[in-house]
Amino acid sequence: MILNTPLTHRPVVEKAESFCPSNIALCKYWGKRDQTLNLPNNSSLSISLGKFGTRTSVSEGVSDMLVIDGKRITIKKPEHIRLFKWIDVILGSERPHLYINTFSNIPTGAGVASSASSFSSILKAMNAFFGWNLKNSLLSHFARLGSCSAARSLHRGFVHLEAGSSPNGEDFHVMPLSEKWNEFRIAIYYINIKPKPVSSREGMNLTTATSPIYQGWVEYAEQSCKEMIKAIRAKDFSTLGGMVERNSLMMHGTMMGCNPPLIYLLPESLEALQQIRAAREQGIEVYATLDAGPNIKLLFLEKDEKAVKQLFPEADVIAPFLSPF
Amino acid sequence: MILNTPLTHRPVVEKAESFCPSNIALCKYWGKRDQTLNLPNNSSLSISLGKFGTRTSVSEGVSDMLVIDGKRITIKKPEHIRLFKWIDVILGSERPHLYINTFSNIPTGAGVASSASSFSSILKAMNAFFGWNLKNSLLSHFARLGSCSAARSLHRGFVHLEAGSSPNGEDFHVMPLSEKWNEFRIAIYYINIKPKPVSSREGMNLTTATSPIYQGWVEYAEQSCKEMIKAIRAKDFSTLGGMVERNSLMMHGTMMGCNPPLIYLLPESLEALQQIRAAREQGIEVYATLDAGPNIKLLFLEKDEKAVKQLFPEADVIAPFLSPF
Repeated sequence: MILNTPLTHRPVVEKAESFCPSNIALCKYWGKRDQTLNLPNNSSLSISLGKFGTRTSVSEGVSDMLVIDGKRITIKKPEHIRLFKWIDVILGSERPHLYINTFSNIPTGAGVASSASSFSSILKAMNAFFGWNLKNSLLSHFARLGSCSAARSLHRGFVHLEAGSSPNGEDFHVMPLSEKWNEFRIAIYYINIKPKPVSSREGMNLTTATSPIYQGWVEYAEQSCKEMIKAIRAKDFSTLGGMVERNSLMMHGTMMGCNPPLIYLLPESLEALQQIRAAREQGIEVYATLDAGPNIKLLFLEKDEKAVKQLFPEADVIAPFLSPF
Repeated sequence: MILNTPLTHRPVVEKAESFCPSNIALCKYWGKRDQTLNLPNNSSLSISLGKFGTRTSVSEGVSDMLVIDGKRITIKKPEHIRLFKWIDVILGSERPHLYINTFSNIPTGAGVASSASSFSSILKAMNAFFGWNLKNSLLSHFARLGSCSAARSLHRGFVHLEAGSSPNGEDFHVMPLSEKWNEFRIAIYYINIKPKPVSSREGMNLTTATSPIYQGWVEYAEQSCKEMIKAIRAKDFSTLGGMVERNSLMMHGTMMGCNPPLIYLLPESLEALQQIRAAREQGIEVYATLDAGPNIKLLFLEKDEKAVKQLFPEADVIAPFLSPF
């Protein structure tokens, strides 16, 4: 085990604050090789969402308290119980009670990874609160224990998460790419922001356990990440966009092989995909990616921003390299 | 080569007629191991559609003539050129000109395999016209050269097509199951009867060539056929229905891994799938299967016929074991 837990748990400040961006996977992560260590089967590649993410403050509490988006949470739901269990693993059971206050400026549970930015911002706030001064390379391992994609939310820009293959995760590795792409745009087109009926966690476990077409996905995704990085380095948006859209659809295809079949797509998702294809045929370079949910993330360049806004007037446009956090 | 072609081509009657039913695959066929011999990668299992199919008459013509559903066809489209090439392979190029008149009582090109019943009924009519007196076991090889699923349309009821693995197709084998199931019902719910943008032939070639998740499908389908046959023998409709729906969705999932992704599903297909799931939750045992197209074939038993008709008033109900041909 490369993680020496628990870490020290004596606060060095009154209160610590941190922000981490949400991230959208361009090459998706789907399925774990180890449930306890939360190690992924395949590498992934993401783009962080600039100023969209989660701001968290951590201070000592008279009891464990969680406030999400201004609302006091009774720790009953599995995801909240899981959050404090994760903190117990990092700090040990002798830890002080914590008052955790998170605020996300993206809808939760709609396939727009707010859990990623929540875990990573809580971790970064704890890093300051307890004075650990740990670097991101080590924090990524702790983040991963909470949510694999949280490890990507520790960084800005394009982020490469290498899954590795070792049983203890020593070759798990998260690195931001140095490439900036100021013209790069993302727009989120919300189709349904209700919490999804099957969580990503349940969905990926169902897929690894029951989908006979899953193994092909793992091998493809590994290769896919590398090719996407090449396209980013070459600033070849058409190639990147095509690969991103296919990657997402293949992940959804893999889920359709589950027992029972798992379908996160809604009729409106397919409709939007048709619209996007039609737009491309008219020369508007826009590509889609969908996570474990029905909502669509549109990828395009600044030159097509106006056209995309006309097509999807309600979509929120994000310039991930222009908005600092 | 187990097929000794060409066969004799001296007519023994003025005109010969034959009918073959259309068939719906319960375990889908998707992808070939040999393009020339038209040998499939995986076994399949189908149900023939009773009186729904294609009636064909064959007689000698002054030139090759094709009439489809009462309309004289100029032999220009790839599928019609392919039809006569197939006849050339069977009869040799010295053959007499043929006047072929087919009439199908199902919409064509909408994923409701009318090509299967067309090829098989033309073959059966030629079998009578030229007095070959070939048994179905041998006809299945000739049918397969035209369209793999045509080999299943030579039979009624449930039909098992064993793909085999030999390079020359000697272990390719088509057999009807002896089981009858009078209560078995199929309803076809048409979502779009326009010819599909990508033919099954093109779609499966794209899948075998580009989808990294395809191999898992092949292995699954092989096993799936065997399990479905068990469920049919046990008259276990729930198990069969669940397997059929999953089989179809997995095939569609596999296509989503293509480059570019291949999606035959329309938004309305997903909508109908949601309706079907909801109906099941209310105790109506209805399952869906989709071929390479957006249309939905509903499977249910007589006991739920009324409920299904209420849900899908426009769907045509077929009782495959009650309607003779």
